Amino acid sequence: MSHDETDTLNIKFDETGLIAAIAQDSTTKEVLMLAWMNKEAFDKTLETGQAHYWSRSRQELWHKGATSGATQHVQEIRIDCDQDAIVMLIDQKGSGACHTGRKSCFYRMVESQDKLIFVDPISK
Amino acid sequence: MSHDETDTLNIKFDETGLIAAIAQDSTTKEVLMLAWMNKEAFDKTLETGQAHYWSRSRQELWHKGATSGATQHVQEIRIDCDQDAIVMLIDQKGSGACHTGRKSCFYRMVESQDKLIFVDPISK
Repeated sequence: MSHDETDTLNIKFDETGLIAAIAQDSTTKEVLMLAWMNKEAFDKTLETGQAHYWSRSRQELWHKGATSGATQHVQEIRIDCDQDAIVMLIDQKGSGACHTGRKSCFYRMVESQDKLIFVDPISK
Repeated sequence: MSHDETDTLNIKFDETGLIAAIAQDSTTKEVLMLAWMNKEAFDKTLETGQAHYWSRSRQELWHKGATSGATQHVQEIRIDCDQDAIVMLIDQKGSGACHTGRKSCFYRMVESQDKLIFVDPISK
């Protein structure tokens, strides 16, 4: 059956073995971050209920918040029509999803071709 | 200045010239789809106020909804800390964002390692 009407999970990892994973706050519905998972990270996420990613910069499995305490507790995982992107509805622990100390990584608005406006300053 | 604290837009396109773009309903905050933009698609989106993507399957600029009427009117564009992903808050016209006729592409929940559950059947 085609990817879009089957009830069988069959993730379409890209040519580097990754899938895009969006973390969305399960309460506010704010998009917190976009990161990447390989098969191992996806399996660990499903198994533990906490978000795991593949760090492309460090080239290693990344248990989000393992050192900072900013863990992400997964309430639900959704997959898209062609099974090459997921959305996780999560409960974000600690200071937030972003390494800058903000709750979301999407704290700037595009104002023009070259200008950004901060919409979520660091409040701590 | 580093990518994460500058107010200058400087999109970090990947090695294939693309950036991941998330379309989120500006009212319900539902994540509708994830697609890709090259520089031209991003510029067209900013210029016209309607979402344009780069179709990786067709290898061409894709004005979303140009033929189907399911255009996406952009209210706001956010960019993440390392400027390699964007979220668009949009007003979705027509039948929805998904080619299957659903509002969102994320209409299935991951139940287990191999099982999906449809949470948003086609209602039309």
